[in-house]
Amino acid sequence: MATAYHRIVGGSVHRLSAISDGIFAVAMTLLVLDLHVPALQLLHAQHALWAPGATGGERQLWHALVALAPRLGIFVLGFLTLGMFWLGQQAQLDHLARGDRHLTWIHLTFLCAVSLMPFSTALLAEYETYRVALLVYWLHLLTLGLLLLGALRYAERAKLFRSDTPEGLVAAARRRIVVAQALYAVSVALGMVNTYLSVALIVLLQLNSAVAPDIRPLNRF
Amino acid sequence: MATAYHRIVGGSVHRLSAISDGIFAVAMTLLVLDLHVPALQLLHAQHALWAPGATGGERQLWHALVALAPRLGIFVLGFLTLGMFWLGQQAQLDHLARGDRHLTWIHLTFLCAVSLMPFSTALLAEYETYRVALLVYWLHLLTLGLLLLGALRYAERAKLFRSDTPEGLVAAARRRIVVAQALYAVSVALGMVNTYLSVALIVLLQLNSAVAPDIRPLNRF
Amino acid sequence: MATAYHRIVGGSVHRLSAISDGIFAVAMTLLVLDLHVPALQLLHAQHALWAPGATGGERQLWHALVALAPRLGIFVLGFLTLGMFWLGQQAQLDHLARGDRHLTWIHLTFLCAVSLMPFSTALLAEYETYRVALLVYWLHLLTLGLLLLGALRYAERAKLFRSDTPEGLVAAARRRIVVAQALYAVSVALGMVNTYLSVALIVLLQLNSAVAPDIRPLNRF
Amino acid sequence: MATAYHRIVGGSVHRLSAISDGIFAVAMTLLVLDLHVPALQLLHAQHALWAPGATGGERQLWHALVALAPRLGIFVLGFLTLGMFWLGQQAQLDHLARGDRHLTWIHLTFLCAVSLMPFSTALLAEYETYRVALLVYWLHLLTLGLLLLGALRYAERAKLFRSDTPEGLVAAARRRIVVAQALYAVSVALGMVNTYLSVALIVLLQLNSAVAPDIRPLNRF
Repeated sequence: MATAYHRIVGGSVHRLSAISDGIFAVAMTLLVLDLHVPALQLLHAQHALWAPGATGGERQLWHALVALAPRLGIFVLGFLTLGMFWLGQQAQLDHLARGDRHLTWIHLTFLCAVSLMPFSTALLAEYETYRVALLVYWLHLLTLGLLLLGALRYAERAKLFRSDTPEGLVAAARRRIVVAQALYAVSVALGMVNTYLSVALIVLLQLNSAVAPDIRPLNRF
Repeated sequence: MATAYHRIVGGSVHRLSAISDGIFAVAMTLLVLDLHVPALQLLHAQHALWAPGATGGERQLWHALVALAPRLGIFVLGFLTLGMFWLGQQAQLDHLARGDRHLTWIHLTFLCAVSLMPFSTALLAEYETYRVALLVYWLHLLTLGLLLLGALRYAERAKLFRSDTPEGLVAAARRRIVVAQALYAVSVALGMVNTYLSVALIVLLQLNSAVAPDIRPLNRF
Repeated sequence: MATAYHRIVGGSVHRLSAISDGIFAVAMTLLVLDLHVPALQLLHAQHALWAPGATGGERQLWHALVALAPRLGIFVLGFLTLGMFWLGQQAQLDHLARGDRHLTWIHLTFLCAVSLMPFSTALLAEYETYRVALLVYWLHLLTLGLLLLGALRYAERAKLFRSDTPEGLVAAARRRIVVAQALYAVSVALGMVNTYLSVALIVLLQLNSAVAPDIRPLNRF
Repeated sequence: MATAYHRIVGGSVHRLSAISDGIFAVAMTLLVLDLHVPALQLLHAQHALWAPGATGGERQLWHALVALAPRLGIFVLGFLTLGMFWLGQQAQLDHLARGDRHLTWIHLTFLCAVSLMPFSTALLAEYETYRVALLVYWLHLLTLGLLLLGALRYAERAKLFRSDTPEGLVAAARRRIVVAQALYAVSVALGMVNTYLSVALIVLLQLNSAVAPDIRPLNRF
């Protein structure tokens, strides 16, 4: 009787996709709130570029912007990371015949972790030489990976996938998540030596995953 | 004549679902704006983890993050709460054959209360030992529940549900809201003694509702 | 030749609806960013409610929240206003067979005005006794109304409405906008005497439009 | 084997459209966060407009708002720019039969640049007399244009367009992007003399592109 409610909620994969797209879109755009326009005490007079002294303020502004570059790098990293997980979630949702209450809650938990990503990204941007910040970022990536894996496993067991789902899809998606997480773990372990090394490696992994070059063995991840 | 306008607006359940997903997505992600990266005066030099003194700053950052834990807990509570109401609203919208002007306004009022949730959640996070904060949070939950109940009642009377709506859906959805609200009321009443007890109970109720274990009588809520 | 581009863009009413829902959802939720949790210097110790002195801090917090009430009222006004314009735009978009480049730009201009609404609303909340703030708010409402009217007129002339559009829809929608704008103008004119009177009248107009009671002549607006 | 994953992700043009609409909607609305309600020390007493001294505060508020006008202008420029790119992207997505992994990543990179637009716009608003700010804004426009061009080229080569795509669409879209970018480059080059001239020219180009008057040769861009 009471479980009737459990049977009527969460059936719509369309709505789950819609709220996922919304949360990813907001989280991806909120990342940029961490990028502040530099506050300089500059004169706001208009001079032709060749006027004497015109380039002094320009140079100051330029240096202030160059100083923002690492933060911009972290922002792009955060965006790529969310993009990758969005694609990973989409690969699952697009092949579901229907959802159910449990699956919806697994995905809502995943989305909760997604909405926290701007925090972990800002933490890494602020404390990029600290292992604690790197560790938090990695635990976050791990959580996202495990939740996607859990959603995959549950959907398979509860037979929620469409009958025309390409054979091997579930296995391929699972292998993909496991390999990516293993590489993240290795990258973060190298952070014991130098955190910039870790961040650079994670960026390269994301780029490789985005560009997906047709070179073996790079295209296997 | 003039009522012609009333007849032409609000008919699209699809658009109502879309703006609901949008508002829930933004409200759920805005919750995290309340989580600030700790501002510490730390050196930003790169040392290997085994270099002497390298762990001092790490420990400071770690403590600052641990201090954020209760706030993170409240954030997760806010997210779960909104997720639950999103599911509750979806359960109704997914079975509507069409909307009308009145139903749309009931749902817009519901969405107005949804968009205020980040405020109540931040209030509870800031003043977690104060009954006034707990009371505001509870009044907010109650308002959301009553509006969902009102929408259900109205949709039933105006015969807006699809003819293939499973029998007992309306009754199950109504019972679900009433039971949840009764349990919230009891939890909040216990806050007279200790507010942490209330918050802990509400979290457990949300978790039970999310996990929906197959154990009687827990699966009845 | 070059106009080929003009012929290929803006044809999708679905995409226009989607970005409209997104912008309305964000604008409606951003309104709440103006509501700040009061910053009080209160102890955060846990006492049972009947412990001596336990109610002092509670009372302080309560007064701080009560002081927020007018701001909350303005927030609800902003939300209702956006809800009304969202419904008004939906009434048009839902009956379009297709869009075109010009119509899309009229609606994008409308959405630009929508995204500015949190600014005008915050201005009115901050300077609620100033005619200038009221005037800005009213000019904003007028702009939104005129743009909707322009979109309606253009869609009619360019024959973009579906052939099954109910007869009289365009006339009803036009009358609706004109009547609402006339009432806003009267309300704002009364602000010359007292601005609270204006705001109260606008709130009543919005509520009447939301509730749409079956009482003549109230149901004509 | 591993490439199986590459074959299963990114196929849904619908999901790509949905996240694009979301990111554009958030970015367009975030622009306004840069518009702050002026903070004045004014009395909040209610006087009839003809009461002596009632107009003093009004005048102060009016001047503060007038001072915001350039910033509002930049905001509208930012909104128009994003609107134009949204239309440009839509023109492509609406004619795709399907997506693939590479195309999705090109569009995600495009969306990453879109989400950074509030930053460049705020930079230009803050330092409107500085060439560096103008240069950053222009590089941003150029990046957006190049990414759209890349997406177009890739979709054509990978034969992702629907078979009923109007002939000449790809050529028209490409010409459109190239012409617009050439005009932006000329406008920015004039900024060497005076940055206001550049901004005014860019605004005129955007307006022309939005209004698309039926006058030769203006309707060719």
